[in-house]
Amino acid sequence: MVVVMMPGVETEAVDAVVTRVEAVGGQAFVSRGVSRVIIGLIGDVETFSALDLAGMPGVAQVTRVSTEYKLVSREHHPERSVVHVRGVPIGPDTVTLIAGPCAVETPEQTLAAAQMAQAAGATMLRGGAFKPRTSPYAFQGLGEQGLRILADVRQETGLPIVTEVVSAHEVAMVAEYADMLQIGTRNMQNFALLQAIGETRVPVMLKRGMNSTIQEWLMAAEYIAQRGNLEIVLCERGIRTFETATRNTLDVSAVPVVQQLSHLPVIIDPSHSGGRRELVLPLSRAAIVAGADGIIVDVHPQPEQALCDGAQALVAKDLGVLARAVTDLTAYMGRSPARRRYRSAG
Amino acid sequence: MVVVMMPGVETEAVDAVVTRVEAVGGQAFVSRGVSRVIIGLIGDVETFSALDLAGMPGVAQVTRVSTEYKLVSREHHPERSVVHVRGVPIGPDTVTLIAGPCAVETPEQTLAAAQMAQAAGATMLRGGAFKPRTSPYAFQGLGEQGLRILADVRQETGLPIVTEVVSAHEVAMVAEYADMLQIGTRNMQNFALLQAIGETRVPVMLKRGMNSTIQEWLMAAEYIAQRGNLEIVLCERGIRTFETATRNTLDVSAVPVVQQLSHLPVIIDPSHSGGRRELVLPLSRAAIVAGADGIIVDVHPQPEQALCDGAQALVAKDLGVLARAVTDLTAYMGRSPARRRYRSAG
Amino acid sequence: MVVVMMPGVETEAVDAVVTRVEAVGGQAFVSRGVSRVIIGLIGDVETFSALDLAGMPGVAQVTRVSTEYKLVSREHHPERSVVHVRGVPIGPDTVTLIAGPCAVETPEQTLAAAQMAQAAGATMLRGGAFKPRTSPYAFQGLGEQGLRILADVRQETGLPIVTEVVSAHEVAMVAEYADMLQIGTRNMQNFALLQAIGETRVPVMLKRGMNSTIQEWLMAAEYIAQRGNLEIVLCERGIRTFETATRNTLDVSAVPVVQQLSHLPVIIDPSHSGGRRELVLPLSRAAIVAGADGIIVDVHPQPEQALCDGAQALVAKDLGVLARAVTDLTAYMGRSPARRRYRSAG
Amino acid sequence: MVVVMMPGVETEAVDAVVTRVEAVGGQAFVSRGVSRVIIGLIGDVETFSALDLAGMPGVAQVTRVSTEYKLVSREHHPERSVVHVRGVPIGPDTVTLIAGPCAVETPEQTLAAAQMAQAAGATMLRGGAFKPRTSPYAFQGLGEQGLRILADVRQETGLPIVTEVVSAHEVAMVAEYADMLQIGTRNMQNFALLQAIGETRVPVMLKRGMNSTIQEWLMAAEYIAQRGNLEIVLCERGIRTFETATRNTLDVSAVPVVQQLSHLPVIIDPSHSGGRRELVLPLSRAAIVAGADGIIVDVHPQPEQALCDGAQALVAKDLGVLARAVTDLTAYMGRSPARRRYRSAG
Repeated sequence: MVVVMMPGVETEAVDAVVTRVEAVGGQAFVSRGVSRVIIGLIGDVETFSALDLAGMPGVAQVTRVSTEYKLVSREHHPERSVVHVRGVPIGPDTVTLIAGPCAVETPEQTLAAAQMAQAAGATMLRGGAFKPRTSPYAFQGLGEQGLRILADVRQETGLPIVTEVVSAHEVAMVAEYADMLQIGTRNMQNFALLQAIGETRVPVMLKRGMNSTIQEWLMAAEYIAQRGNLEIVLCERGIRTFETATRNTLDVSAVPVVQQLSHLPVIIDPSHSGGRRELVLPLSRAAIVAGADGIIVDVHPQPEQALCDGAQALVAKDLGVLARAVTDLTAYMGRSPARRRYRSAG
Repeated sequence: MVVVMMPGVETEAVDAVVTRVEAVGGQAFVSRGVSRVIIGLIGDVETFSALDLAGMPGVAQVTRVSTEYKLVSREHHPERSVVHVRGVPIGPDTVTLIAGPCAVETPEQTLAAAQMAQAAGATMLRGGAFKPRTSPYAFQGLGEQGLRILADVRQETGLPIVTEVVSAHEVAMVAEYADMLQIGTRNMQNFALLQAIGETRVPVMLKRGMNSTIQEWLMAAEYIAQRGNLEIVLCERGIRTFETATRNTLDVSAVPVVQQLSHLPVIIDPSHSGGRRELVLPLSRAAIVAGADGIIVDVHPQPEQALCDGAQALVAKDLGVLARAVTDLTAYMGRSPARRRYRSAG
Repeated sequence: MVVVMMPGVETEAVDAVVTRVEAVGGQAFVSRGVSRVIIGLIGDVETFSALDLAGMPGVAQVTRVSTEYKLVSREHHPERSVVHVRGVPIGPDTVTLIAGPCAVETPEQTLAAAQMAQAAGATMLRGGAFKPRTSPYAFQGLGEQGLRILADVRQETGLPIVTEVVSAHEVAMVAEYADMLQIGTRNMQNFALLQAIGETRVPVMLKRGMNSTIQEWLMAAEYIAQRGNLEIVLCERGIRTFETATRNTLDVSAVPVVQQLSHLPVIIDPSHSGGRRELVLPLSRAAIVAGADGIIVDVHPQPEQALCDGAQALVAKDLGVLARAVTDLTAYMGRSPARRRYRSAG
Repeated sequence: MVVVMMPGVETEAVDAVVTRVEAVGGQAFVSRGVSRVIIGLIGDVETFSALDLAGMPGVAQVTRVSTEYKLVSREHHPERSVVHVRGVPIGPDTVTLIAGPCAVETPEQTLAAAQMAQAAGATMLRGGAFKPRTSPYAFQGLGEQGLRILADVRQETGLPIVTEVVSAHEVAMVAEYADMLQIGTRNMQNFALLQAIGETRVPVMLKRGMNSTIQEWLMAAEYIAQRGNLEIVLCERGIRTFETATRNTLDVSAVPVVQQLSHLPVIIDPSHSGGRRELVLPLSRAAIVAGADGIIVDVHPQPEQALCDGAQALVAKDLGVLARAVTDLTAYMGRSPARRRYRSAG
């Protein structure tokens, strides 16, 4: 941390800051300029934060310097990580296509969507059994019955499953079915949930809070990592802005920014960002050439009958066009499509 | 819902919309203008939402009309509600002052803060034992030990307690100590938590998500109400905007807007909104004359040693000034200070 | 400015920063900590900004310290200023009520609105002759004819006039009629306009850009001040946020924040903030007790026929209620209503 | 427009709405449902807006339906337009690379930057002579002297020039030098400037206000078009959000959204969006595959000495990499690089 003093401040004020910092075991380095005194602090940032240095006489500004996330930072882990989900890699050398229905509705609909996904080259299946919805009157998902449908479809197709978990005490149950747990945008700062998943060793996809900064997103990942689970994939899904023409605003810049700060893989969800079917293709292309390690898209055999977000689901015809774009631009970026590296029992 | 068709649209397109709406049990009323056809829909909005009407040929726009919250709406419950917390009312005839430390740290600090609060006319004590923090390295609260300290301080002072619960499976435990449960800003859409609290009959303070619209906030309250608990107090605590001069931007307009839409009481937290001690007094005054049913403020006997948000905590001297302002402006608004109406065992 | 180096950086990198800073006439003070080197810079911040220090090897972060506004800052001008508009003061000892129609439509409507305003205790008249509108198809104001109507109404009532100017080359013409020039929210960074008004000695009301930070707002005021005109009143009128229940979000905290940073008076426009008539009263009350030096409200004799923003205009009955609130709360704040101090020719 | 009445409303309230609408020459179509009455209005939307229908008894909601921009809309002009700047096309069949310094500083710097741009395949030169800056103490540009430098560099290189104009009364003067006028983000709603440029027949690049919705942006374009100038190119340059890791948040979705709504070409400025050199390449790639009709980037021979935004300027080496990406992805999109179609006098 850096403490900047007001112009013309008394020596006593400077000494008081130094004394308070040293009292909690920190070190303070004073630099005197012509019109300003600046004090650099070395020690535990959290301890310093609790000192209310900004409220001390003569202090003009207190600035935080070191990043607060450590385990997910690239600072001490320069090589970018690969997360494997039942043999499917998500990382710097590949582009992983994940597709499936927003919500699991019936065995038939889920299987049809999975087969569409697979035909288009997807190597993972998404599908929600627990749906956090703004309205309590909206369809909330099939619950554990939905998980069983997903497991059956995995048996049929071989596609590993990513599915959302919404409560800490359901983590163990969902993990019995899922290959990868998803933390949704509304739960990004549900710390009890983050910690419960951190206790497992199941890969996790952490969606960015629609109102969270990149810093807060990485801190949420740090909560998981701190408990020992580093199998984390970040997923940008649009942020809330004043613009209403799209459901959310895809922050495509988040991909290179995150990759500079963290070693974790980062993918993009173009379906929830834009909220409209016709935006999925251009946003997917943009995601891949911005360097995303994968994309996750909504598909549905009959979107007009979907119980959730039908307006953004791709149909089979769209998916073929998308698949070709993914293939071409993956190659352009010098990467390979992500394929399963070994065969597992399913 | 209202469906607006594109100019010059074919009859077939209009019929297709009507057919689809009727297929799910809805009614469709077609209004033909000179250049536009408009279709009004009567029936279940959620069902209609799933129909992807916006994606049908010839449809220009789909607009939602009816509010989605019912139990917390003022539409069918015109009189504003009063919530009682161990005999202390929060509602339209009173202004309730709630004060206490951001975090419970020690028995001494908590008791000192409670006595400061009480001397200033506060009739409820706030204090956090479970602290959701952005960083996993920040102080996370004392947990159940903190709750025991709060209960002891209630025994000593008679002040009812409001304290945060962060996880659905801890609701029962926290409710053993607390007189009112608090749902924090980061958990406003933790639906499992909302539902668990909805199952109890314990009063709850629902803080607005710092990035949530008023509509979403009322929908979150509806989740609680739907399970049978209508003892809900809403708390505005600042929203996230582009402005960085304050920690968040207090949305003071939310008070009259919410009171028009919902019968639930609404209070303001000026401490977390501004994030700076010197803003607490002007924002508290603004809150009361905007019509807030109460305010909740951070106090601390020694803010410079606080483990959490010391920069915004009031000290004893500030609190006296605040107390006078609360008294004067409560009277100006034709209300009374909230006092306990009966004596309970504590 | 403060330059923070990366951990374990080489001496060469530190020296390179120092050399570059000294090359442009600055001074650099190096502070070596255990894991970090911090360099404090003294000199011209703009010159330093142009050096791309953040792009130099080994630099982790560059932070700006000193404020960039000087003339409007309270740092060298601790006493808060009073601006007089034809004898009506706006400043720390008074609360000034400004009222009038959003747009000047006819002589009759303008006079009626002015008389309503005056009866309610307003001592200045607002009214737009040049209306910047989002749509080119919306009513754009009567132009110079509107200014003549305003001047006639001033003759009749004695109320000084504040009216908007939208283009640098019209400043002289508008200033022939107006007692105070208004810079609208969309023009807050129209620097040519700011500078043209800075060349005059006419008082100016600078509305906050609906998307501007307080820092940018004060910088815009500095543009005016730099040309020699310090007769500036700041006006908060709501900022753009994700919330759609109100037209904009009134940032009531801006009042105490600005008063801490700048000596300029600051008032609030509750009509444009909320965009709804029923919010004007609670927001006006909030404004006054937050410390605002005045309020400016829309009134209209027949709002349902208004050509601009009728939904937010007060009618005579509302205005009486507002007037009483202004009187009472002005007294509560230990201030006086603003009255003209001398009689001018009109 | 659509007027939605409250549930159980009286016939009188409905009739009153109809009467008021018909009084101003509009038509009202009443649709009665089981629980709601909906009234569709046909006629002039602006006239209706002035009626304060939302304030009438029994009215629940008023919704606008028809778009307010007409000349720039794709509704009546389905084919996407091409704008030619001294023979260089910007439109649906090409990708135009525009490059140059943020600010014109010296003849040498400008020529060097132009030659870098040309070597990389750019066919237009950008460069600012009038710089609107947040701070009045920042470098404001060389003014007309800068325009002369640009004209000399055009003579030397043949590259057409785009440069900013900041004031209505300078439009004619700047147009003597420029091939394309630029309206900067802070002036997007400077309506006097929009109208003055609308009076010319000079091509114009309209940057999106950093806080403007797409709707407002198209309305600003309509201001220009309304005066007869349809040679408009839209430029997305990042919007203001809560995220601070990038200078602004590039709204890449705006490209497909705008192309659906308007026939005008739309390009992207990746330099000002991200504000950091290392983001220019990934964001440029994303822009092209999202369908942008061009990109405009900052280059500088010695960014560390730039007087403006040096941190985001590309150097020669970066520019070569960018040029290859532009070429490859332009081909991928089935387009051609934009080349001058005829030789002009220069």
